[in-house]
Amino acid sequence: MRVLGVDPGLTRCGFGVVETARGRKVTLVAVGVERSDASQPLDQRLLAIDGAISAWLDLHQPDAVAVERVFARRDLGTATATAQVAGLAIVQAARRGIEVGLHTPTEIKASVTGSGRAGKAQVEHMVARLLGVEEVPGPPDAADALALAICHAWRPVALSTTPDAQTSAQKAWIEAERAARRHPRVPGR
Amino acid sequence: MRVLGVDPGLTRCGFGVVETARGRKVTLVAVGVERSDASQPLDQRLLAIDGAISAWLDLHQPDAVAVERVFARRDLGTATATAQVAGLAIVQAARRGIEVGLHTPTEIKASVTGSGRAGKAQVEHMVARLLGVEEVPGPPDAADALALAICHAWRPVALSTTPDAQTSAQKAWIEAERAARRHPRVPGR
Repeated sequence: MRVLGVDPGLTRCGFGVVETARGRKVTLVAVGVERSDASQPLDQRLLAIDGAISAWLDLHQPDAVAVERVFARRDLGTATATAQVAGLAIVQAARRGIEVGLHTPTEIKASVTGSGRAGKAQVEHMVARLLGVEEVPGPPDAADALALAICHAWRPVALSTTPDAQTSAQKAWIEAERAARRHPRVPGR
Repeated sequence: MRVLGVDPGLTRCGFGVVETARGRKVTLVAVGVERSDASQPLDQRLLAIDGAISAWLDLHQPDAVAVERVFARRDLGTATATAQVAGLAIVQAARRGIEVGLHTPTEIKASVTGSGRAGKAQVEHMVARLLGVEEVPGPPDAADALALAICHAWRPVALSTTPDAQTSAQKAWIEAERAARRHPRVPGR
């Protein structure tokens, strides 16, 4: 299964593609960050990012697209733009009939590190380790997009495994996802 | 000039098309509300609304698209979905090379009623009056979309008129727009 993770953003949008073989083995296919010119009006910036999303989908032909589930934050302007980019990625995938998965930051961290409260450095470290590379190429947004893709790739495995056979990372992730469904967590409040 | 106003929403998305002749005369071309099925997953709902936006653009071929400038609200889930639909409308317009205008609720109210703090009923009353119809056809979202289209249609007139020649509505609108640029207003805070 090939998964494209999209870490939505207007100024910088992270993309990461991973491939899962049998079991929990994941390999890195591609990773990158696309930017939009902050001096341009919003419509031109959203159009540029929309074009980038389209190009990543056409090039890598993923079976699923994983998008970070966006919540409002303190910085409302940024939250709105982030939600808009997430919406574009969701619709581009849906238009192509590709499965869409939305995952919260807590789920993503729990999936790759075993703890929903892991820091950036820990997530980055584990992403590199899981993909068997020295370090994740590119800026932090790239690691986030890969973590998202891994989180989604592992989802069916996690759900189909009986509780006894679950790893501690899977258990933490399932718990984080359940908690997010019960009480959508709002960072910064 | 033909303007399509989009009052973004996932459950109900309002559309209103007006045509301006010389001066401030505006006429009603079309108005309606498109819905998405709340029992469907988010990707299918966004896809349905995206298709509706596309259909309105193709059918009415507007010269400009006016979209409500979205801010985060108390209800964070709704605000995210609203931002996503606004993003879809902005990109659909930009992709077709159509001018996009973003207007705050305060600007819109000031434009059609002369007061940025006008209530729903007052806005609806003035929209009907300005369009020369007995009452605005359809639900409240429809009136909001038309108010948005009128606000945008009047914008160049308002900006090119000298202060002495401005109507009180134009003055209130220009002031509201300036204020919104200085201090983006966040309803509910």
